Amino acid sequence: MSLLNSIQGPEDLKILSPDQLPALADEIRHALIETTSVNGGHVGPNLGVVELSLALHRVFDSPKDRFVFDVSHQGYVHKLLTGRNDAPFYNIRKSDGYSGFLCRAESEHDCFGAGHAGTALSAALGMASARDLNGSDEHVVAICGDAAFTCGITMEALNNVVHSTKRLIVILNDNEWSIDKNVGALSKYFNELITNPVYKRLHEDVQSFLDRVPGGASLRKFAHKAKEETKDFVLNSSLFEKYGLRYIGPIDGHNLDDLHRYLEFAKASEEPVFLHVITEKGRGLPVALEKPEKYHGTSPFDPQTGKSLPGKKGAPPKYQDVFGNHLVEMARQDKKIVGITGAMPSGTGLSKLRDTLPGQYFDVGIAEEHAVLFAAGLATSGIKPVVAIYSTFLQRAYDCIIHDVALQHLNVLFCMDRAGLSPNDGPTHHGLFDISYLRCVPGIVVMQPKDENELIDMMETGMDIEGPAFIRYPRGEGIGCLPKAEAEPLPVGEAEVIKPGQDLVIWALGPMVYEASQIAQEIESETGIEVGVVNARFVKPLDHALLHQQANRAKLIVTMEDHVRTGGFGSAVQESLAEANLQTSILSLGWPDQFVPHGSNVQILRKAAGLDPASIKSSVLKRFYQTAKDWIPHLETGTAHKI
Amino acid sequence: MSLLNSIQGPEDLKILSPDQLPALADEIRHALIETTSVNGGHVGPNLGVVELSLALHRVFDSPKDRFVFDVSHQGYVHKLLTGRNDAPFYNIRKSDGYSGFLCRAESEHDCFGAGHAGTALSAALGMASARDLNGSDEHVVAICGDAAFTCGITMEALNNVVHSTKRLIVILNDNEWSIDKNVGALSKYFNELITNPVYKRLHEDVQSFLDRVPGGASLRKFAHKAKEETKDFVLNSSLFEKYGLRYIGPIDGHNLDDLHRYLEFAKASEEPVFLHVITEKGRGLPVALEKPEKYHGTSPFDPQTGKSLPGKKGAPPKYQDVFGNHLVEMARQDKKIVGITGAMPSGTGLSKLRDTLPGQYFDVGIAEEHAVLFAAGLATSGIKPVVAIYSTFLQRAYDCIIHDVALQHLNVLFCMDRAGLSPNDGPTHHGLFDISYLRCVPGIVVMQPKDENELIDMMETGMDIEGPAFIRYPRGEGIGCLPKAEAEPLPVGEAEVIKPGQDLVIWALGPMVYEASQIAQEIESETGIEVGVVNARFVKPLDHALLHQQANRAKLIVTMEDHVRTGGFGSAVQESLAEANLQTSILSLGWPDQFVPHGSNVQILRKAAGLDPASIKSSVLKRFYQTAKDWIPHLETGTAHKI
Repeated sequence: MSLLNSIQGPEDLKILSPDQLPALADEIRHALIETTSVNGGHVGPNLGVVELSLALHRVFDSPKDRFVFDVSHQGYVHKLLTGRNDAPFYNIRKSDGYSGFLCRAESEHDCFGAGHAGTALSAALGMASARDLNGSDEHVVAICGDAAFTCGITMEALNNVVHSTKRLIVILNDNEWSIDKNVGALSKYFNELITNPVYKRLHEDVQSFLDRVPGGASLRKFAHKAKEETKDFVLNSSLFEKYGLRYIGPIDGHNLDDLHRYLEFAKASEEPVFLHVITEKGRGLPVALEKPEKYHGTSPFDPQTGKSLPGKKGAPPKYQDVFGNHLVEMARQDKKIVGITGAMPSGTGLSKLRDTLPGQYFDVGIAEEHAVLFAAGLATSGIKPVVAIYSTFLQRAYDCIIHDVALQHLNVLFCMDRAGLSPNDGPTHHGLFDISYLRCVPGIVVMQPKDENELIDMMETGMDIEGPAFIRYPRGEGIGCLPKAEAEPLPVGEAEVIKPGQDLVIWALGPMVYEASQIAQEIESETGIEVGVVNARFVKPLDHALLHQQANRAKLIVTMEDHVRTGGFGSAVQESLAEANLQTSILSLGWPDQFVPHGSNVQILRKAAGLDPASIKSSVLKRFYQTAKDWIPHLETGTAHKI
Repeated sequence: MSLLNSIQGPEDLKILSPDQLPALADEIRHALIETTSVNGGHVGPNLGVVELSLALHRVFDSPKDRFVFDVSHQGYVHKLLTGRNDAPFYNIRKSDGYSGFLCRAESEHDCFGAGHAGTALSAALGMASARDLNGSDEHVVAICGDAAFTCGITMEALNNVVHSTKRLIVILNDNEWSIDKNVGALSKYFNELITNPVYKRLHEDVQSFLDRVPGGASLRKFAHKAKEETKDFVLNSSLFEKYGLRYIGPIDGHNLDDLHRYLEFAKASEEPVFLHVITEKGRGLPVALEKPEKYHGTSPFDPQTGKSLPGKKGAPPKYQDVFGNHLVEMARQDKKIVGITGAMPSGTGLSKLRDTLPGQYFDVGIAEEHAVLFAAGLATSGIKPVVAIYSTFLQRAYDCIIHDVALQHLNVLFCMDRAGLSPNDGPTHHGLFDISYLRCVPGIVVMQPKDENELIDMMETGMDIEGPAFIRYPRGEGIGCLPKAEAEPLPVGEAEVIKPGQDLVIWALGPMVYEASQIAQEIESETGIEVGVVNARFVKPLDHALLHQQANRAKLIVTMEDHVRTGGFGSAVQESLAEANLQTSILSLGWPDQFVPHGSNVQILRKAAGLDPASIKSSVLKRFYQTAKDWIPHLETGTAHKI
């Protein structure tokens, strides 16, 4: 029996002897590679924290003690060690598998879920304060990547640690990468801490103290002594000391003995402790060590060669690539155009700009608020910033959008990839709220292209708009339309009639236009109902004139969007008709008012929500017959006739 | 002629001799006190920056050089020096006066508007990068209060300074206060910087270098030399040095000679510089020095005694006080209840909790994201956090609401004061978007009380709800209803019928209920149309059953809310009827899709938007007659009859 299979929970891990741990670590790495090479996933970060996760679960007692993993994409090892070394693990990120992130509903060992960066320290501080208020004695450990410190929230939390609690353990899991190579002054500073000989010596001092510690009993005393004797100017001058935390590091994150010792030290400490642990992203998978960016989160790959498994033959280009390529073209022609990303050059497609026109490219780290405000500042001086942030992460910068871009009426173009589902990632990554939260912001333009060609047209449109403009588009592949000869800006606020038809009209947003056309044709040929299809293009400003004209004649207006119904595109249509006092029936189709889980692919998730083409067709017809009393359906044949 | 009256712009300031400046400073202080004692306003912060503003405008050339004031409530002196020493200044914050904040539309000298904290460094960095891209040579100066550094955005920007530009001047205007006394580790650290003898000596070294500088010409050389000679371990170990900025301080913010010298030094510097300037909030107004919190932003006062001018006799209690008092009662009975504020104990009413039950009170500084995440962490351990953040500032924590509270399904109660207008402050402070941005978040409850009594009932309700709950209420005084004997939780999702009536029904939210009742009675008595009134109470979940029942009979449903129409409460009603396929006419009354300016009071602003009672009555009747063809209005008499 393998060691890993013997572990049903942390208690099984604790009874292993220390010399069994390297073998267990090997088994875990094998399981990680096996799983992610088939399912895709965050293989690099997890390979980096195998020893750290083992040490945490041996030194502390989860779930009583609390581990809060930042982003929590590095929680696979933790899952394996907490009773989840079973089938759903090997189907991780699929419909019948575990989430690729920690998830409170999944296990009592997942005390906090995440998916966005920079939340762990703040949440952990809340847990530590709760412990103090409750008079209980659990330990709280926040495990943060170095990128968490580029996030404002982490720094807000850091400022509050000392006056909120006396006992908190913060682990900096430093692998010098966020998703891409980490940026900014702090990242450089972390590196200095590692290489500075003064720190190195202090580190050795602490270590030598700890070497003399016989066991847990007197550890506290020694820890206290260590603290007193090493409390000198240099230690106090580290950045974390200025925030009142005791800094200890660097610690070899793959040395189990060291990890145990320092974690025991931190456990015994009566002041907040900051442990600087150095780990290697992708350790144990040579191809991942060579390309840490690629193997941060990956699609299925061959573990031997590291090559991604071949995708569909002749698959259409991804929206991110269409965006990235066209931005390079635009930026080449207009030197005032710059691109801004928050640590996502690859995912957003902005890496193309970085590689070709680095002077017009800014990566600000995982710092969406700064990204948006920085763009606002640039725009005041005639620069034309294009901010590329995923729909879900733009939630972070909501106030900056309102207060610093829209209210200041600045020309900033926002390009939101991953608007719609991010199926394998799940609810932390779906981009299903952006229309609702943007629609209320005065003076902005919100649009979604039906395909890759229209994305290019909308980029040109957005660049000419006075004031902020937002383009949303889905994750992954486009429609596969033939590239147009030339991009052309669209008239703002004008929808496109795809198919005339006056009995019912489907107003579709984005690639839903293609589904709508298919459904319209089927309904029309099967029932004789004339079904119009409109490519809305603009959520704001909506094409009120065309809508009112159609609503005056149609029995039913249907809206289709890849977004929640509440406050979404359908609501914009409803508001427009209510304002015009038009009482046409409206059927709004979109995601229901609940968090959408992760799943194997978009189709499965849409079907579960009644949003697959067959269900949509049936909902549309049901509503149509309910409303248009002069139409009689023939249920047996699926046809209909007008009275 | 007074010195101040001679200044039409910065060029007039530059020709004054240095010995005229103290007299000018006195005149400015006089003007500030005169204006704010009548209009209210941010008197304390502005009294603190008189000399700093003078020095900035003498050393730099606005508008070519850029001053970005954080929050910008300390921009009154800047306004006086940039051509705005005129009547609108003396009516500041009123309908015919200037904004109480900087405003791009108001002057070319206001290169960036603000109202929320923590945005200046980020925006300034954008401007500095734009300068570098444009190849121009303007200086960019960010002027930040110490509280800006409790904000995550400032720290995100700080991390990006060094790799974004080589020339940026950051001024820390340190008065040890944000709005209330500043909190957190950084605030303590700033204080250490001031008192540390090593820093003091270094500071004197720099000063002695500068003393030897004969004029601007060779300043750059000397600045370089000063840098080299003082670049020792201690300087490099300051927090700002770790971020790659050269730290210089502390500097006496009321010594004009020192300020000039250091600003010239910074101007000549070829690396980003951080100037730590110590100012006294309220300097020149003895009562403000004694009570800096009160005189941060004040209502009209007697400048001699410092007493607030008497308000209306027998005015109703403010919502913030009703909230603050009842929270103390709740927290006294349940030790698990805690209150959290982001530096607004007075404005939110949470100061009462601080003063009576300090162990159940947390002020996290201006750090709304951390406030919400910290609450989430507390809630995972059975603590019942009440987060008191103004509607507009909660925009900062939008992602935390979705990703860290709602998705984790945690019991956090949000109490949003200033939901609706904050008339004297204007668009940066109006709380007009919260319903739109919250409605799309799954699994939450959103409610608004019609009056003070119902606020108390809703606090009880919110505490019992599983998952996040939000209560919004307006700035200032309540309705003045008689206090109820006992608070009682409301059934979630149930509206209250205030007045039956079936021809048209007004669904009103919050205190609009009282206006709706008045309008309903007038319409009914004048025309005979039966007008029902419903107190919606819950925006989410809406009372669909009652709404559908009424919509089935009524000719018209009217919604009234103190919020933008787009995506607001009215849209919730429209969505509900569309979902049920009910084609009743809906008239949604709320703020239009534009930023609402500042103004003397709510009534003036409502009238300008057609939202005063007379306009509402007329809109309602117009729509009713348009829709209900069986009713004939008599325009001469204002009456009507049914066919």
